[in-house]
Amino acid sequence: MIIDCHGHFTTAPKELGIWRERQIAAFEGSGARVSPSELEIGDEQIRTAIEQGQLKLQIERGTDLTIFSPGAGKMAHHYGDARTSLDWSQVSNDLIARVCGLFPDRFVGACQLPQSPGEALAESIRASAIEVERCVTEHGFVGCLLNPDPSDGFWQAPPLTDRVYYPLYEKLVELDVPAMVHVAMSRNAAIQGTCAHYLNGDTSVFMQLCQSELFRDFPTLRMIIPHGGGAVPYHWGRYRGMMIDQGRPPLEEALLHNVFFDTCVYHKRGLELLTDIVPARNVLFASEMIGAVRSVDPETGRRFDDTKAILDSIESIGDQDRAAIYGDNALRVFPRLNAALQNTKQQEVAQ
Amino acid sequence: MIIDCHGHFTTAPKELGIWRERQIAAFEGSGARVSPSELEIGDEQIRTAIEQGQLKLQIERGTDLTIFSPGAGKMAHHYGDARTSLDWSQVSNDLIARVCGLFPDRFVGACQLPQSPGEALAESIRASAIEVERCVTEHGFVGCLLNPDPSDGFWQAPPLTDRVYYPLYEKLVELDVPAMVHVAMSRNAAIQGTCAHYLNGDTSVFMQLCQSELFRDFPTLRMIIPHGGGAVPYHWGRYRGMMIDQGRPPLEEALLHNVFFDTCVYHKRGLELLTDIVPARNVLFASEMIGAVRSVDPETGRRFDDTKAILDSIESIGDQDRAAIYGDNALRVFPRLNAALQNTKQQEVAQ
Repeated sequence: MIIDCHGHFTTAPKELGIWRERQIAAFEGSGARVSPSELEIGDEQIRTAIEQGQLKLQIERGTDLTIFSPGAGKMAHHYGDARTSLDWSQVSNDLIARVCGLFPDRFVGACQLPQSPGEALAESIRASAIEVERCVTEHGFVGCLLNPDPSDGFWQAPPLTDRVYYPLYEKLVELDVPAMVHVAMSRNAAIQGTCAHYLNGDTSVFMQLCQSELFRDFPTLRMIIPHGGGAVPYHWGRYRGMMIDQGRPPLEEALLHNVFFDTCVYHKRGLELLTDIVPARNVLFASEMIGAVRSVDPETGRRFDDTKAILDSIESIGDQDRAAIYGDNALRVFPRLNAALQNTKQQEVAQ
Repeated sequence: MIIDCHGHFTTAPKELGIWRERQIAAFEGSGARVSPSELEIGDEQIRTAIEQGQLKLQIERGTDLTIFSPGAGKMAHHYGDARTSLDWSQVSNDLIARVCGLFPDRFVGACQLPQSPGEALAESIRASAIEVERCVTEHGFVGCLLNPDPSDGFWQAPPLTDRVYYPLYEKLVELDVPAMVHVAMSRNAAIQGTCAHYLNGDTSVFMQLCQSELFRDFPTLRMIIPHGGGAVPYHWGRYRGMMIDQGRPPLEEALLHNVFFDTCVYHKRGLELLTDIVPARNVLFASEMIGAVRSVDPETGRRFDDTKAILDSIESIGDQDRAAIYGDNALRVFPRLNAALQNTKQQEVAQ
């Protein structure tokens, strides 16, 4: 089974975006709230969006299952207040749950968290613990997206290793659910979103983890750093050296029991480096589809985000490592996936 | 001739740091100024610092010449006001000039700029144009360090492609001097300096350049993105795809006449990727010494920043490409190097 651990509902019906725009305008106008119940999207709309989008690509590429979350850029946690963020998260997550309900053997959910920047941060982290529990217990979700910069491009929050995040980590450990560390949009004119802020977020958080004892406090907490780990594997020597300089243990010992990279790197040379440098048990297949880059690579004739085809072409990956990267690791890092897949099978048998 | 385009005077005599601390304290206390003339460092101190530091490593590693600049992290442009930044830049640059005067066949200068964040930005860019001219015409410097984030970790400035920077670019073009794009320290607790902010700065600025027409306005302006280009070569497919998505020309056409990467990547696999992906004419040898990582790599028995030894071990680099990377490119990107080397030779002959 080939599991893509990083897909977003970037093709959601336009009603979702319209509701969000109304929500933001209402808050900015008078602090008013737009009720989540005012969003109406029919099953047929969802079905069409998925069948013409992510499902079509899954079938074309031969991948089986996607861990599916709301559009990451659109999380945009800086808008409004804690309530704005909670409503928007619930609307987004409930829509993901409907996708997973309509295509139970193809999509399993990961939720957006109702984070907020500034003074609302601590409160928003407690609310995030509640929302992740709701999504896991009520919707069968298996993961979440954790934004290290809810200011959306100005990095106003403390590092993810700060104790303000501990209530969330306690809940993640209790539920046995990992977090994918994923920034949202950038509203900073100096830092573009998908090709700068995303990668910078990955790099910054890896370094936060290098400098902390977070995993001593939470030995079973697991984090996925997406986009191939930002700049990290390319600069692996820099991080290894910095750990020695600082008298810290090797990366393998300090981080690699808890930190995983996905394969959202859109060329063969990059994926060769990733799979050569990072132990296979720490690499999870992902395509980020439909996402950051949508065009076809004229050099290969395939879409840039068709990481499956690129990985298939890398002969140096052995069979066992390939099985780990394509699915076995995801089943270990997202242990609730097993239960979700069992449920689906039982329902299919019963039908 | 092997030219290291990226070295910093991180081993400067302690008097420099003490003067800087006094300068900051005086400004923060009462807005007072500490005169640059109050800094006293003897030639013998400089000689010792260099002979036991950078020169020793040059000789050990078989490199000939370093383009030498003040410690990048210590530029710390957020402190004080425009005058603070100007005094500190002049003190730092004049010290580099003394190093170059004492070791004229080993070090050629690149200057720090008197940048300031916030409202002082535009004024500080005009002051930077004046300072770079002073350093080039009076000290024989051949380049400068341009900080894209003078707020030191919070990215408050517009992108480097903004017109506020044009007075500096006009001067750089007039002088035929390139800029190395290099952030300073990070005072943001979420973003460590050498292993996060540095790489993020590289990545962010490359993407700024991808989105702009800066090089249409300044066809001969040249920028070096250090630290192997941050995350960029590892994610080369992402940038290629993004350019196609946005209907922009290929990277080679839009950027690679003007943008260069250095080789400050501290492991073989990373440098293999860099030299394989980026055309050899866009790669400049550098070690960042003595710098970000100081320890010895237990896997190689050499210091992590001994990029010369790593590059020597990469057999796939052909002779012509190797000559380009080790020195020919630097002579082209820093055309004033030729004049500086001629001067040195003439002086040696005259003596």
